[in-house]
Amino acid sequence: MAHPQQQLPVVIIGAGFAGLAAARALGAAGIATVLIDRQNHHLFQPLLYQVATAGLSAADIAAPIRTIMRGRPSVSVLMDEVVGIDRPARLVRLASGGTLPFAELIVASGARHAYFRNPEWAAHAPGIKTIDDAIRVRRDLLLALERAETLRAEQRETRAEHLTFVVVGGGPTGVEMAGAIAELARHSAERDFPHITRACVRVVLVDSGDRLLKALPPPLSAAAARALAGLGVEVRLNARVTGLAPGRIMIGDDSLAACVTLWAAGVVASPAALWLGAAADASGRVRVGPDLALPDDPAVYVVGDTAAATGPDGAAVPGVATAASQMGLHAAKAIIARRAGRAVPPFRYRHAGSMATIGRSRAVADLGWLRLSGHPAWLLWCTVHLWGLVGFRSRLVVGANWLWRYLTFDAAAKLITQRDGMG
Amino acid sequence: MAHPQQQLPVVIIGAGFAGLAAARALGAAGIATVLIDRQNHHLFQPLLYQVATAGLSAADIAAPIRTIMRGRPSVSVLMDEVVGIDRPARLVRLASGGTLPFAELIVASGARHAYFRNPEWAAHAPGIKTIDDAIRVRRDLLLALERAETLRAEQRETRAEHLTFVVVGGGPTGVEMAGAIAELARHSAERDFPHITRACVRVVLVDSGDRLLKALPPPLSAAAARALAGLGVEVRLNARVTGLAPGRIMIGDDSLAACVTLWAAGVVASPAALWLGAAADASGRVRVGPDLALPDDPAVYVVGDTAAATGPDGAAVPGVATAASQMGLHAAKAIIARRAGRAVPPFRYRHAGSMATIGRSRAVADLGWLRLSGHPAWLLWCTVHLWGLVGFRSRLVVGANWLWRYLTFDAAAKLITQRDGMG
Repeated sequence: MAHPQQQLPVVIIGAGFAGLAAARALGAAGIATVLIDRQNHHLFQPLLYQVATAGLSAADIAAPIRTIMRGRPSVSVLMDEVVGIDRPARLVRLASGGTLPFAELIVASGARHAYFRNPEWAAHAPGIKTIDDAIRVRRDLLLALERAETLRAEQRETRAEHLTFVVVGGGPTGVEMAGAIAELARHSAERDFPHITRACVRVVLVDSGDRLLKALPPPLSAAAARALAGLGVEVRLNARVTGLAPGRIMIGDDSLAACVTLWAAGVVASPAALWLGAAADASGRVRVGPDLALPDDPAVYVVGDTAAATGPDGAAVPGVATAASQMGLHAAKAIIARRAGRAVPPFRYRHAGSMATIGRSRAVADLGWLRLSGHPAWLLWCTVHLWGLVGFRSRLVVGANWLWRYLTFDAAAKLITQRDGMG
Repeated sequence: MAHPQQQLPVVIIGAGFAGLAAARALGAAGIATVLIDRQNHHLFQPLLYQVATAGLSAADIAAPIRTIMRGRPSVSVLMDEVVGIDRPARLVRLASGGTLPFAELIVASGARHAYFRNPEWAAHAPGIKTIDDAIRVRRDLLLALERAETLRAEQRETRAEHLTFVVVGGGPTGVEMAGAIAELARHSAERDFPHITRACVRVVLVDSGDRLLKALPPPLSAAAARALAGLGVEVRLNARVTGLAPGRIMIGDDSLAACVTLWAAGVVASPAALWLGAAADASGRVRVGPDLALPDDPAVYVVGDTAAATGPDGAAVPGVATAASQMGLHAAKAIIARRAGRAVPPFRYRHAGSMATIGRSRAVADLGWLRLSGHPAWLLWCTVHLWGLVGFRSRLVVGANWLWRYLTFDAAAKLITQRDGMG
């Protein structure tokens, strides 16, 4: 007997780690699937900070979604923006004006930066989530160096003010950004800019907690702080941002002139809860059941950074790439099982480990059974991240770039672009 | 005896091929030099069309000027825009508000696209001169494919209108763009977009003359036309653009719907003639003497695409990269000779040859003593262009990219970015 409802496709919103894992599994099973994303490319976000700090080109860490899905003819790729979901009608509404019917829905629309109760800060302290974000940050960092270089003699005493870079947030992204900026602005710049010495460059990493990298055990937090100090990064713990204005940041009662301030202090989920009319936690993440579906709608799954999921032990699933991939894969398997009339086991997050890199050749890594810091952790970090990249070509190019940088200390993509509309 | 005037630096405006060649020679001689450019990078423009057609990343063909000049401590690099030249006061005026005194001046500020008497066409048919231009063209090409893919069934008959790409100008840039677009939109796209077949993609190359590549002998023009036809490019000779509007181009009396129109039909020099108060030809190029200096000002040189120079035989020096490099080097040598009290020999252009590539593996080349087409010309073209790139790293990356594309037929940088402010 024909089930007309079964002829409708699975619709996946978002081609990040979660959406891509789901699309691959559904495509491998030959299930008709539509994968929607605002961008035409999947982005390997864990390395985006290296695009922002001139180490990699955007194309090195991004792959066209259509090219990734070439071998899976049951998956259609659609570049469009979702503006709403009509759950009763089983429709996704698109910015282009069209609608898309679905049998099952996987919402994997990710997260964006959260500025707490200060949305106006976004203009003064950008975060990096997209390639365009990263290219703009790269432009700001390199322009700050160009401007400091051309200061007239009488302004040179204030050069440190023109060369103060602040990163807000001491998680992996903040730690990696701060380390990479220190290398770019202190080590690499010294060779290109005759008037800039590393003594006049200041890189400040601010976090409200009492240690960096809270997902890692305290000894590794301490190792990361030491490695950052070795690169000349000033770490300010127990410090809260109280104000932001162009060229200036307030940390507690302290006002600091800063040429560039970057935000890596937390995210808020995409408006999926609003679209779905579903319950959300304080960060806007949709509360899902043990199978990652909405409690009242077993055909609608929410995965990745958009979901507030807990494991069978009650522990929250973290907002990291490996968790997103696992959740996407689980949702796809659950749909395949449901269509076959099989039961769906609850989602169980397998923690693969946490790591962060600091600069050119140091890192910290916690695999549970093994804790590493320094050079061995960095080699592990390189291996894991190269492995995670989509496609042989990206692995080759990024690997070659890292080797080049390791040998020459030189960043590969120090280009100032996207200057339209600037003074 | 001290010559205070001799303490002033040589100022070079523009770090293209001409400016860079001059700065290298002056730096090697230890002469104090200031090299000014609006960008922070030197761009290998002959390969810019490959960035626009998603084959290369911007960083592959651009190198920071400061990094190039590292080994030449007498050369200062300044990222700024020139807004005027005060010849009597021996000053260059900068957009940042400062001025820069010079003993000798080398103007190498290049050229931009010329739209004859129709400046409003620039909005509808962009040319590519900068990285930002190329990234925007890449976005437009890839978005046209995405849009054509999502046409509803009833619109599909008009898909050819949504997939008509027009290139205006049959010189090397136009020929290379048309070939690369045909490969991207017909060959590579077919594999990524289920609804796009090469039959519905139309690439038109328009030229007002009676053959392509007028700098090459007629048999090579014919070979290029055949190679373009083999890629499915429709070549329209003796055809003049009479009108341009969004999505539409008038060629003679014929109106064509076109999703993307690109301009490669001639350039006009930068406003150097205006800055200098010097005589210019119809294309705005400054008329220079046999030593490349202004006839009335032997310390002011104009080189590259900004100059209207003739050789001792009266032949015009062409607006190509090799000529620009030779002119820049000549100006530097002339300044070194003048400072040493030696006479300056007239500039003599040594023609190295002309070539253009068509698609993934064909080219035409004329070295004077040797004329090649097809695969051997393409290998020569690759060698010459790799050789011309600045720095070992760029050569390696671009060479690896070409090899990859040759083996896989796949473009490496199919990213849609810079979409801010779009609908």
